[in-house]
Amino acid sequence: MSDPQTGAPTPLGRQVPPSPGRIMAAEMAEQPAVLQRILDEGAPRISAIAAEIAARGPRFVLLTARGTSDNAALYAKYLIEILLGKPAGLTSMSTTTAYGAKPDLTDVLVITVSQSGGSPDLVASTKAAREAGAITLAVTNNAASPLAEVSEFHIDVLAGPEKALPATKTYTAELLALYLLVDGLRGGDGGGAAVKALPGLAAGILGRHAEVKALAERYRFAQRLVITSRGYGYPTAREAALKLMETTYIPASPFSGADLLHGPLAMVDNVSPVIAIVPEGKGGDALQPVLDRLRGRGADLVVVGQRAQVDAASAGFALPAGVPEEVQTILEILPLQQLAYEITIARGQDPDAPRALAKVTETH
Amino acid sequence: MSDPQTGAPTPLGRQVPPSPGRIMAAEMAEQPAVLQRILDEGAPRISAIAAEIAARGPRFVLLTARGTSDNAALYAKYLIEILLGKPAGLTSMSTTTAYGAKPDLTDVLVITVSQSGGSPDLVASTKAAREAGAITLAVTNNAASPLAEVSEFHIDVLAGPEKALPATKTYTAELLALYLLVDGLRGGDGGGAAVKALPGLAAGILGRHAEVKALAERYRFAQRLVITSRGYGYPTAREAALKLMETTYIPASPFSGADLLHGPLAMVDNVSPVIAIVPEGKGGDALQPVLDRLRGRGADLVVVGQRAQVDAASAGFALPAGVPEEVQTILEILPLQQLAYEITIARGQDPDAPRALAKVTETH
Repeated sequence: MSDPQTGAPTPLGRQVPPSPGRIMAAEMAEQPAVLQRILDEGAPRISAIAAEIAARGPRFVLLTARGTSDNAALYAKYLIEILLGKPAGLTSMSTTTAYGAKPDLTDVLVITVSQSGGSPDLVASTKAAREAGAITLAVTNNAASPLAEVSEFHIDVLAGPEKALPATKTYTAELLALYLLVDGLRGGDGGGAAVKALPGLAAGILGRHAEVKALAERYRFAQRLVITSRGYGYPTAREAALKLMETTYIPASPFSGADLLHGPLAMVDNVSPVIAIVPEGKGGDALQPVLDRLRGRGADLVVVGQRAQVDAASAGFALPAGVPEEVQTILEILPLQQLAYEITIARGQDPDAPRALAKVTETH
Repeated sequence: MSDPQTGAPTPLGRQVPPSPGRIMAAEMAEQPAVLQRILDEGAPRISAIAAEIAARGPRFVLLTARGTSDNAALYAKYLIEILLGKPAGLTSMSTTTAYGAKPDLTDVLVITVSQSGGSPDLVASTKAAREAGAITLAVTNNAASPLAEVSEFHIDVLAGPEKALPATKTYTAELLALYLLVDGLRGGDGGGAAVKALPGLAAGILGRHAEVKALAERYRFAQRLVITSRGYGYPTAREAALKLMETTYIPASPFSGADLLHGPLAMVDNVSPVIAIVPEGKGGDALQPVLDRLRGRGADLVVVGQRAQVDAASAGFALPAGVPEEVQTILEILPLQQLAYEITIARGQDPDAPRALAKVTETH
């Protein structure tokens, strides 16, 4: 039995479809166009919603999400704390859906992020938040979803239908939409030229596919991975780990650099590859002592970051310089999505349809 | 070369001290006495602090911690949302320490949890929170620490010096102190008979050491572990994963049951052992669909929970029945601490001193 596309033999007993990964590859490639669409068509509406919410003067922000969208929510948490100076938290949904907690949410903005807008627990917890006095905002890829319906405000991330099970274009779309929202909440101008440059920069990164393919060879037989970053890069570490786990099935543990030193560092040895996302800016600076400790332990360190950081590591992928740190997150994940894809292909699996998963996960 | 205590051969090239794990074993065994000490000596002071804080009427609670203490903080977050009905969040410390964020923290209670009270980032972020208007409370095992000093209020968890690198007794001490705090904030009576029974129940669980040793055999050669729970059991899943990683070096990925279905489930197959902590109550009920999915995928499922749940799994450890769900967390971790210890011993390593770690982790 051989793969009809490549002629390469497929592992015994696995049903490999004609073009494994075809859908995920197409959706990853759409990302520059999706980012452009958000800037062209989505931004005015996001800005109007932000103005309405800002006028209501929320004091606190709670973010609710699961899976990939939870990593986008974590990015928003950093933006809200750093750019808005408002305390923010990620909700533990079961406190509402399983334990029936009824917190007083006056003055609280509750942002629920979900690709499908369909998971019953997200709908229930958003409904409960609205009844408890919160300003509710749904950020989804489906304007007709139950989540959009129960929320007072709705932002459509305009990514178009996503059919591959691993979310890619909806993740970067959520990131940009959330950035524009937070920028609007502080009365910003949409990020100016730096944000307008993102679609082009994304296209440039996605075009360097061969570099990622070479990197994938390194991890083809890895038994496990540790992924670390700090600050604005930490959501990228978490999303890269999730993407790698759900496509390649390699256990990938994401740690903030500081948490890594509080225990899990013991797990790192010279056969445990580490991927570090090193933002250009304060997050990357704060990560330096961690990188030094990892090098000291003889770790195989692959860096996604600036050229000088990549050159000081075992290998890596260089990102464009001069992008403001708060939007680097939107670019950092791109080579890591491709890495998950390439390792999965190299291992003879189909990135489009990881075993055991359904696109709309119904949790309660 | 052989272990001087057991006569068993030790792996080539490893320096095994005379009694590997002696310190961790002693500290685990102290836990019933520490819990009793908190109830006898600590509770009145915790109750007085809770009354003072409650009188100030905080509207929101932020929790700051790292490593094991972060898992205790997560437990407190559930208590605060469910029992107090107040919104709560875990802070991303780097927003303050790396990015210099200055959120308005009027009406906010900031609880910082740290065994040593010595990590510079915790001290800096607590100091910044106090300057930003927050009510600050440190929960530490060191009343003379810099963290206790910069905080307005301080709760001593009275665990006595902890010398093994993996935190055990300070974790359960933090859990009980935080429970008493939250109970005091809602004007409770300290939990009554159910809480008074905890030291005795803990001693009973720790006495069943032989059961855990048998369970450890199962994981001796495991390449990775998935650990799951929901609600009040989720902090246990996270702490068990951390304990296993820092002692055995086996990558252990903790997921809330709901998040496991949103992606990482693909990683679980019939050679990937899963440990599920199944609380007796709403968290355990909410976990049932996840357990069914895991069984359906042929996972090797080990349950820490009620006898009937253990009997329906591949193996497990039965917990006493009838304990209120909100304090089961204090008992659930005990067999999992022992499991980490036993696997580490079985692998010829020293649980007292994992490679690469220092007891007071200085992160900035």
